[in-house]
Amino acid sequence: MDLLRVERPVCIVDPVKARRNIERMAGKAAASGVDFRPHFKTHQSAAIGGWFRECGVGKIAVSSVDMAGYFAEAGWEEILIAVPANPHQAREIDALAGEIALHVILDSTETAEALAGSIRNRLSVWIETDTGYHRTGVPIEDIERLAAIAGRIRRAPHLSLEGLLVHDGHTYGATGPDGVRAVFETSRVLLAEALAGLDARGFRWLKLSIGDTPTCSLADAFPPPITEIRPGNFVFFDLTQAGLGSCTPADIAAAVACPVISRHPERGEVVLYGGGVHISKESLRLPDGSACFGRICGMNEGGLSWGEPMADASLVSLSQEQGIVRGPAAFIESVAIGDTLVVLPVHSCLTANLHGELMVLGQGPVSKFRL
Amino acid sequence: MDLLRVERPVCIVDPVKARRNIERMAGKAAASGVDFRPHFKTHQSAAIGGWFRECGVGKIAVSSVDMAGYFAEAGWEEILIAVPANPHQAREIDALAGEIALHVILDSTETAEALAGSIRNRLSVWIETDTGYHRTGVPIEDIERLAAIAGRIRRAPHLSLEGLLVHDGHTYGATGPDGVRAVFETSRVLLAEALAGLDARGFRWLKLSIGDTPTCSLADAFPPPITEIRPGNFVFFDLTQAGLGSCTPADIAAAVACPVISRHPERGEVVLYGGGVHISKESLRLPDGSACFGRICGMNEGGLSWGEPMADASLVSLSQEQGIVRGPAAFIESVAIGDTLVVLPVHSCLTANLHGELMVLGQGPVSKFRL
Repeated sequence: MDLLRVERPVCIVDPVKARRNIERMAGKAAASGVDFRPHFKTHQSAAIGGWFRECGVGKIAVSSVDMAGYFAEAGWEEILIAVPANPHQAREIDALAGEIALHVILDSTETAEALAGSIRNRLSVWIETDTGYHRTGVPIEDIERLAAIAGRIRRAPHLSLEGLLVHDGHTYGATGPDGVRAVFETSRVLLAEALAGLDARGFRWLKLSIGDTPTCSLADAFPPPITEIRPGNFVFFDLTQAGLGSCTPADIAAAVACPVISRHPERGEVVLYGGGVHISKESLRLPDGSACFGRICGMNEGGLSWGEPMADASLVSLSQEQGIVRGPAAFIESVAIGDTLVVLPVHSCLTANLHGELMVLGQGPVSKFRL
Repeated sequence: MDLLRVERPVCIVDPVKARRNIERMAGKAAASGVDFRPHFKTHQSAAIGGWFRECGVGKIAVSSVDMAGYFAEAGWEEILIAVPANPHQAREIDALAGEIALHVILDSTETAEALAGSIRNRLSVWIETDTGYHRTGVPIEDIERLAAIAGRIRRAPHLSLEGLLVHDGHTYGATGPDGVRAVFETSRVLLAEALAGLDARGFRWLKLSIGDTPTCSLADAFPPPITEIRPGNFVFFDLTQAGLGSCTPADIAAAVACPVISRHPERGEVVLYGGGVHISKESLRLPDGSACFGRICGMNEGGLSWGEPMADASLVSLSQEQGIVRGPAAFIESVAIGDTLVVLPVHSCLTANLHGELMVLGQGPVSKFRL
């Protein structure tokens, strides 16, 4: 495939950047002596999973029972499904738990009760807590509810109580690195108190798994009681992470190569064949209040890498199959129909999810999980 | 599949509503004596395409060469690819043009030149115009550029000049039905003038194809010089269309059935297993300025239909795999873990695109095109 003249939008991955991102995070986990359980929802690819294995990774997180099945098939023997279990999937969960070391999460006695009544293979269970994100999880100060759930898990012969788990998604709302670190420190103190409360009620030696790429990228270390980190997005990073300071634009390892199909220099715009079904409608706000669906780079000669994002050029609008790039007059004038432009995504997980395969630069296409 | 207890998010289609939407639009086209070329990018399914065939439809539009190949395989013999052609796909376009009556669109002499030089089978070509949407298309007042492109097409032995085509996507920015009709009338007058100008330059008997669901739903008729309508979204409709007045919420024929996996009555919220990868991140603004990613219905007993959207309940937040539903206390209190909630989508094209199959209520799953 000639990436300087693409036929259709292609999701491209820079293996040098992605492997560097993996190595850096693995090294950081090792330095703190915590387990590294990367979340594979970002790349969803068995081949890219292999890059983690080369860094010594043996346990992973995924975001659905189906994705767990895909990676079990690819040889992964310990998988955590990091979305609260749906009791109606108990039969599928039980079947997979008969094949690999399967971990699930939950935040209610109802779900614990349902699993206790239907699981026959050994299943590891984590209690999800909420330290401020307010999506799923038991409110961290509700020690009685945490203890009730822990007790219900412990009484079930096939369930194994692992510990507490948190996803501090509110780091994405923080303003810069210090804001992310402040969320992390608050969360860690609250989790330590909850663990102490559970310890006092007889639930000893519980593990603590934390997630989210902003925290894991920006924290200097992962002190006790943390035993595990579970970031996912860091393998590719994206504009959201760059905006938070989790990475620089040069660390972003996934993008979409799109052909230019329409020129409008009189408007300062060109139009890409590449829309919401290739890039996703996730957007961020530019300083002037307008929406940005991606930043624009050029493909380097040879098609083995892309260049730095262009100043003042942005994907300003996105319909189902097409996107409008606005930029400085000299740049727009220089672009011809058929040229490839590379879009750095706002949210790489959603972008990669849209594609049936990922094109690894210099290596070729790799297949991935699909819904 | 028990749709009252779904295991994972399922994209569901109400065939009664969808067939009614198709019949209504086909009837409207027939009443005006224009061709009806529905855009299949919304459902992307050969089985649902069959419902159109039963209404007498013989020609369709799609949004990519790949999708054209899928529907050609399914027996459709006249297909328009309604995104400006990428010259680097000329070989694929030519191959498909050898199998079916293939139509493409373009808005530049460069692309016309490229196709003239590489197409060997008969290919029908439309010139896309821009009457105010400002995405792709030749500015409608630029009669010289239109004539230059038309001339280049006409000189190519294998290209057949069909006429002008427009997608008035700026109807989506209109405030209500009268605003949509005003855009339509302005556009129609501009297009009639351009056609007269081309006629005066020797380009006689050109056709005129208009698109967009708001116009086609809200216009009373399609007077000359319109010869064809090309709406797509109307088969399913969605909250965006209901907001514009193109339909009522009761006409919306596609939705996502999601299991509840976490309860937070203290916040007035429950959390669905169902996120951006199942619903898409397209959102609209509620009157209070907050984002809405979908409205919430219940599944009716028997699983053959869903109920009316609940007042004041909304999908207020959407991460990769999970969504937060906020609603009145009595409703939230009544929801149990494992219950199915039905999400009416903001943009049904993007929602359906995310799924590998669609579940037709009362009939079963049907497969569809995938990127």
